Amino acid sequence: MISVGIIGGSGYTGKYLVQFCNNHPNIESISIYGHSTAGKTICQVFPELLNQVKDSIIMNSKDISFEHDVYFIALPHGEALNFVPGLIEKNKIVIDLGGDYRLDDKHEYAKWYKTNHSSPELLSNKTYGLADFYDSSFYQSSLIANPGCYPTASLLGLLPLTKRFYNKIISASTSAYSGTSGAGKSANADLSLSEMDGNVRAYNINAHRHQPEIEQTLHKFGFASPYSFTTHLLPACTGIYATTTVFLDSDMSKESIQELYTEQYAGSSFVRIRNTPPNLRWVINTNFCDINVNVNKNTIVITSAIDNLIKGASGQAVQNLNKIFNWEESAGLLKGAMNVSVY
Amino acid sequence: MISVGIIGGSGYTGKYLVQFCNNHPNIESISIYGHSTAGKTICQVFPELLNQVKDSIIMNSKDISFEHDVYFIALPHGEALNFVPGLIEKNKIVIDLGGDYRLDDKHEYAKWYKTNHSSPELLSNKTYGLADFYDSSFYQSSLIANPGCYPTASLLGLLPLTKRFYNKIISASTSAYSGTSGAGKSANADLSLSEMDGNVRAYNINAHRHQPEIEQTLHKFGFASPYSFTTHLLPACTGIYATTTVFLDSDMSKESIQELYTEQYAGSSFVRIRNTPPNLRWVINTNFCDINVNVNKNTIVITSAIDNLIKGASGQAVQNLNKIFNWEESAGLLKGAMNVSVY
Amino acid sequence: MISVGIIGGSGYTGKYLVQFCNNHPNIESISIYGHSTAGKTICQVFPELLNQVKDSIIMNSKDISFEHDVYFIALPHGEALNFVPGLIEKNKIVIDLGGDYRLDDKHEYAKWYKTNHSSPELLSNKTYGLADFYDSSFYQSSLIANPGCYPTASLLGLLPLTKRFYNKIISASTSAYSGTSGAGKSANADLSLSEMDGNVRAYNINAHRHQPEIEQTLHKFGFASPYSFTTHLLPACTGIYATTTVFLDSDMSKESIQELYTEQYAGSSFVRIRNTPPNLRWVINTNFCDINVNVNKNTIVITSAIDNLIKGASGQAVQNLNKIFNWEESAGLLKGAMNVSVY
Amino acid sequence: MISVGIIGGSGYTGKYLVQFCNNHPNIESISIYGHSTAGKTICQVFPELLNQVKDSIIMNSKDISFEHDVYFIALPHGEALNFVPGLIEKNKIVIDLGGDYRLDDKHEYAKWYKTNHSSPELLSNKTYGLADFYDSSFYQSSLIANPGCYPTASLLGLLPLTKRFYNKIISASTSAYSGTSGAGKSANADLSLSEMDGNVRAYNINAHRHQPEIEQTLHKFGFASPYSFTTHLLPACTGIYATTTVFLDSDMSKESIQELYTEQYAGSSFVRIRNTPPNLRWVINTNFCDINVNVNKNTIVITSAIDNLIKGASGQAVQNLNKIFNWEESAGLLKGAMNVSVY
Repeated sequence: MISVGIIGGSGYTGKYLVQFCNNHPNIESISIYGHSTAGKTICQVFPELLNQVKDSIIMNSKDISFEHDVYFIALPHGEALNFVPGLIEKNKIVIDLGGDYRLDDKHEYAKWYKTNHSSPELLSNKTYGLADFYDSSFYQSSLIANPGCYPTASLLGLLPLTKRFYNKIISASTSAYSGTSGAGKSANADLSLSEMDGNVRAYNINAHRHQPEIEQTLHKFGFASPYSFTTHLLPACTGIYATTTVFLDSDMSKESIQELYTEQYAGSSFVRIRNTPPNLRWVINTNFCDINVNVNKNTIVITSAIDNLIKGASGQAVQNLNKIFNWEESAGLLKGAMNVSVY
Repeated sequence: MISVGIIGGSGYTGKYLVQFCNNHPNIESISIYGHSTAGKTICQVFPELLNQVKDSIIMNSKDISFEHDVYFIALPHGEALNFVPGLIEKNKIVIDLGGDYRLDDKHEYAKWYKTNHSSPELLSNKTYGLADFYDSSFYQSSLIANPGCYPTASLLGLLPLTKRFYNKIISASTSAYSGTSGAGKSANADLSLSEMDGNVRAYNINAHRHQPEIEQTLHKFGFASPYSFTTHLLPACTGIYATTTVFLDSDMSKESIQELYTEQYAGSSFVRIRNTPPNLRWVINTNFCDINVNVNKNTIVITSAIDNLIKGASGQAVQNLNKIFNWEESAGLLKGAMNVSVY
Repeated sequence: MISVGIIGGSGYTGKYLVQFCNNHPNIESISIYGHSTAGKTICQVFPELLNQVKDSIIMNSKDISFEHDVYFIALPHGEALNFVPGLIEKNKIVIDLGGDYRLDDKHEYAKWYKTNHSSPELLSNKTYGLADFYDSSFYQSSLIANPGCYPTASLLGLLPLTKRFYNKIISASTSAYSGTSGAGKSANADLSLSEMDGNVRAYNINAHRHQPEIEQTLHKFGFASPYSFTTHLLPACTGIYATTTVFLDSDMSKESIQELYTEQYAGSSFVRIRNTPPNLRWVINTNFCDINVNVNKNTIVITSAIDNLIKGASGQAVQNLNKIFNWEESAGLLKGAMNVSVY
Repeated sequence: MISVGIIGGSGYTGKYLVQFCNNHPNIESISIYGHSTAGKTICQVFPELLNQVKDSIIMNSKDISFEHDVYFIALPHGEALNFVPGLIEKNKIVIDLGGDYRLDDKHEYAKWYKTNHSSPELLSNKTYGLADFYDSSFYQSSLIANPGCYPTASLLGLLPLTKRFYNKIISASTSAYSGTSGAGKSANADLSLSEMDGNVRAYNINAHRHQPEIEQTLHKFGFASPYSFTTHLLPACTGIYATTTVFLDSDMSKESIQELYTEQYAGSSFVRIRNTPPNLRWVINTNFCDINVNVNKNTIVITSAIDNLIKGASGQAVQNLNKIFNWEESAGLLKGAMNVSVY
C-alpha cells in the first residue's frame, strides 16, 4: 500500500486522478494540492463527486510535504519545473502529466515552449510513459513523463507501421480532433457553448507542441519522412479522434498490415484493434485506445480514438503507476472507468 | 450467489443491466435474451463493451429457461405480459423495467395503455420499487414494478412535501425534460441528431403514461389537489431534469421544508440533497438523484435530476435486487457507475 | 430614410441589430458604438459578417453623437442609464434592449436590480414594446423598453388567456429553458461547452429579474393569482422554450380557448398558433413566436418558443422601430431572418 | 422571369431550394415534386417555413410536367437517371444536385455507384458546376452536375495550388468532417442524437464516391500524385470542414502561396480567404466557402469550411442558375442566407 500526492488536483485531469486513486486497491492515502482551490474540499470543487470519493481538504501546493511515495503532477506547462527536481532528489516517484519533461532535448524545449528548461539533466533520464507500447522493463526512471493526449492517440496508431516499414514511408500526416475539455477548465469566451456548439476550428497549424513530441518518438523507430500534424476542436466535451494517412513506396496486403497491429498489441489490455473505424464514444469514460487500419494498395489510413482525459492523461498516468510497481495494469482503472454511459 | 436472466438485453437499459450484473459481487451467472439480436454476442451489439464484460451469445427470448433465480425484463410495454405470469408461477423473482405492472388498477391500465391487461391479479400484488423512498420491509412481492424514469425523478422530489403537507397544497405541476435516450435505440428521423441538435419539444401533453403512475403514488400519501405533468425532449442523450412547482395555502420557512427532505433521505445512499439547483451532469453515469428545494413564502420549487437509464431504469432495478436480498444497496452499482467523466 | 446609432454593438444582440439594420430598406446610415471593441471594425469582431454587412469602425461610446434619428441600446443593465436621459432630452427615439426601463416602479427596480434608478420619471412614460401584442396606437413614447427574452415568450403565451379569464385562474407557473447565448459573449467557465454540453441547470429560482417584469404586465390585465417563474439553461446556443401551466376554477373547451389565441394574433405576422407543441428549431433564426395551447378540463398547458436573440431581443427591437414609423412590420426582418438552416 | 420545377423537394436540400427560389427576384413560379410527400403542402413537411414561403401542394413526381424553364433535381443517386434525359431532350435546363452525372466516365460510374449508367452520352456533355472556380463561359451545357458537398470544400481549397504546382506535389491527403445532415432526413438509429451526440466516426475509408469526383477534377489540372480522402461524421447537424495536407518537393514562401489564392478568388463573391483557420460556424447558413492556407517550408495545410446544404448543395445550385442566366451571382442567396444566427 502506498501514499500518493496529487499536485494540481482541481482541474479535469485532477478530478479523474482523485477517482482512480480512490478506486485503487494499493493506494491507502491521497493528498491533493491546489492553488486557487486550496482550503476547499474536493467535493466543493467537484460537487458530482459527493458520496463517490472520500472528501478531503485541498492543501496549498506551497506547503507540499515529502511524506508520499508517489506524486502525480497535473499543472500547466512550466509549473512542474518548480516541483519535479526537489521530488526526484528526495527519491520520490514522479508522474508528470504536463509537457515539461516529454522532450529529450533542451533546445527543442526552448523552441516549442518559449522558455529555457531549468532542469535539463532530467530530460534525458526520464521515462516517456507510452504505457500500451512499452513493457515494464522500459520503466527505468523514477520520473515518468506522461505522454500528451494527441501523441498517445497518434503514436499508438502509427508506431507499429513505423517500426516495420519506416524506410518505405513516402509521407505521413495526422489530422486530429479533440473535445474542448483538452483546454482545461478555462474561462474563455471562445470555448463557451455559445461559440463552440455546432462549431469546428483548426488551431496551431504547424505549431502545436505535441508535434515535436510525436516526431521525437517516430524518429527513435527510424522514421525520417515528411510528417504533418494538424489539430482541431470538436463540438464535444471529451475525446480525441486521430486519422493518420500514410503513403508507402509499394503496395501492401491488408492482412500483413493488420497482423502487425494485432501482434504489437497482443499483450495490451487497453488497446482494441477494430475491423471498422472506431466510434469516438466507444472509448469515452474508458482507458481504451481503439484502432482501425485501412489498407488500399500503398495507402494506409489509421484511425485511433481515446478519451483525452483518461487514456490521454489520468488513466494512462495510473496505468504507468501500475507498471512501475508491477501491479495489475488495470488496477484502479477498469471498473472505475467502465463505460456505463451511452456516451 | 445467484443467477440472473435479462430479457430484452440489447436496448440501452439492457446494456446497463449487463454491466451492473457483471460488476455485481453476488451474481455468478448471467443469461441475456433478445429477439432481433438473438445469435449475436453482447459485444457485437455493443462494441464499446469489448474487454469490459464477459461476452456471451444473446439467446432467443422464445427459448427462455427457468434456471435463473431472478429475471430482469427490459421490453416495450405489452411484451412483459407474455413472460411475467409464467415466471411468477415458477416462484421466480421478477423485476420489470417496463410499464406493464406499475399501475394498480386494470381500468387505468386499459385507459392509458390502450389494451386490456392479461394478468390483472398481479397488479395489486406487485411491489412498486421506488428504491430510495421505501425500505426493505416494503418489498413483499416477488414481482417488482420498476418505476418509470420521469416518476422516479418527480416522486423523489415531491413525496416528502406531500407526506407532510398534502392537505395544504393548492396545486402542483411538474415540467420535466428528458434526453433522447429515453426513447430507446430507435430508427426515427425525428430523433436524429440532424433534427434534435439545438432543438426542444414538448410531447404527450396531458397524455403521458407516466402521469397516472405519479398520481397513483401521490394519492397514497393524501394528495388530492390539481396536478399537471408536462414532458419535453432535450438536445442531449442522457438524463432527466424535473422541476416541480407547488403552491401552498400558507407560507413556509425554508428551514422547515429542507429539514423534511434531509430527514426523509437521511438513510438513502443515492439521494443527495443540494443547496443549489443540481446540474444534470452531476448525476449522469451514476445512480444518484440530486434534489434541491427552493422556498419563497408559499411557493415551493423542487428541482430533481437523475440519469434516466441508471436511476431511472437499470440502476434502480439493481438497487431493488439488492433490497430484496438485503445486500449492500450499492452492490454492483457505485463503482460501476462512478462518474469518471466530465459528463 | 433614417439614421441609426447602435450603442453596444459588439455583443450577440448587437450582431443581429447590425444585420437587420443593414437589411432594412428605410435605414440609410448606421453607426456602431462600443467600449472594449472601439477602434476595431464590426467584421473584425464578427468575422462571419465579412461580405455580408457594410463594414465600419466601431466608435467609442464615450464619443456618442446626436446626429442619429434612432438609437438602439444593447448594454448590460445599469449602463443604459448613462445614455437614455440625454438622448430623450434631444428628442431622439430610443429603443433600449436592456432591463433598465422595463419596470414601471422605481422601488421594484431598486429591489430587483439592487441599485436606485437615476431617471425614474422615465419609467412611467416609456412604452413597453411587446410588439406582437400591442398595436401602433400603443406606442406613445419616444422611449421603448424592449421586453426581456423570457417575458416575450411567457407573456405572448399567457396574456390571451389572462385577458379573458384572469378571475378564473387558481394558479399559473412558467418553466422556461434558454440557450446559453442569453448570457451574452462571456468568458465564464460555467458556460463553457466542456461544462454545458449535455448539461441542464435551473438558476435564479424565485429570484429572476424577468419575473417582476412578467407579473407587472399580467397585473395590468387583472391577473392576481399565485404565479411562479423558473428559468433553466439548455445545452444549446439559441432559443427559449417556455411551458406555462394554468389551473382554472372550471373546465374549458379546447375550441373556446384556442379561439382566444387565433383571434388575439389574427393580425400578427410573427405569431404562429400551432396545433402541436412547437419545435424550438422552428423559430431559430427567425422573429417568430410559435405557440400551442393544450386544454384538459381545467388544466391549460401553453408552450411557446422564440429565438432569444431575435424575437427575444434584436428582432423585436427592429419590429418596434417599424411600428413607431408605421413601416411594414417585417421590414428588415423576414428575409434577413428567414430560417435557411436545419437549425 | 422564369419558372422552376424542384424534383425531390421534401429533403433538406429541397427545403433550401424552396426558400432560395421563393427569395429569387427572377423566379416567378415554383412547382415542387415529391414521392412519399406528394399531396402534402411544403409547410406541412417543413412547419418552420410557415409564413416564410408561399405554401403549395407537393405534386407527385410521376406527374411531372414540362412547363418549367429550369428543373432542380434533389434525389438519391440513381433516381435522377429517370428524369434527366427526357428533360434535356425537351431542351430544359437541368441542375442535378445528386451524383449521377458528376463523373465523366461510365466505367468509373459503374465502379463507384455499383450500377450501369443509362444515359452515358450525357456524362461527357454536362457542365461540372463548381461555381466559384469557373466563370460563366464554362457553362456550355444545359445539364449542370452540381458538385458534391465534400468535393466543393476540398477542390476549392486544393485547386489553386494544384493549377500552379501540380508537378511539385509529393502527396496530398484530405481529412474531412461533415455534419449529420449530409445523410439526409433518414430514420437511422446510428444517426440518432442518442448515438451521435459527443460521437465521431470515420466512414467509407478509401471507398467514398466523392473521392473519384475530386480526383477527376484534380487530374484535369495535371495532378498525378498520391491522394487520399477520408470522411468523418461530426456531432453537429450542419457543415463540412476539410483539412488538406500537401507535401511539395521544395520549400515555398507563405506570401507566394497566399497570393495564388487571393488572385484565384479575386472575382468570387462567395469565397473568403482567411488569415486564420476558419470557424465552421462562420459559414453556417451561408453560401460562403472560407479558406485558410498555412505554409511551413514544403508543407502546406489548407483548411476550408462550407455549409454542406447551401454551398455544398442548394446554394451552389442557385448560384449555378445565376451563372447560366448571367444574373447577379448572389441573386436569391445572400440576403436569404445571411448568417443571422450565432450558429
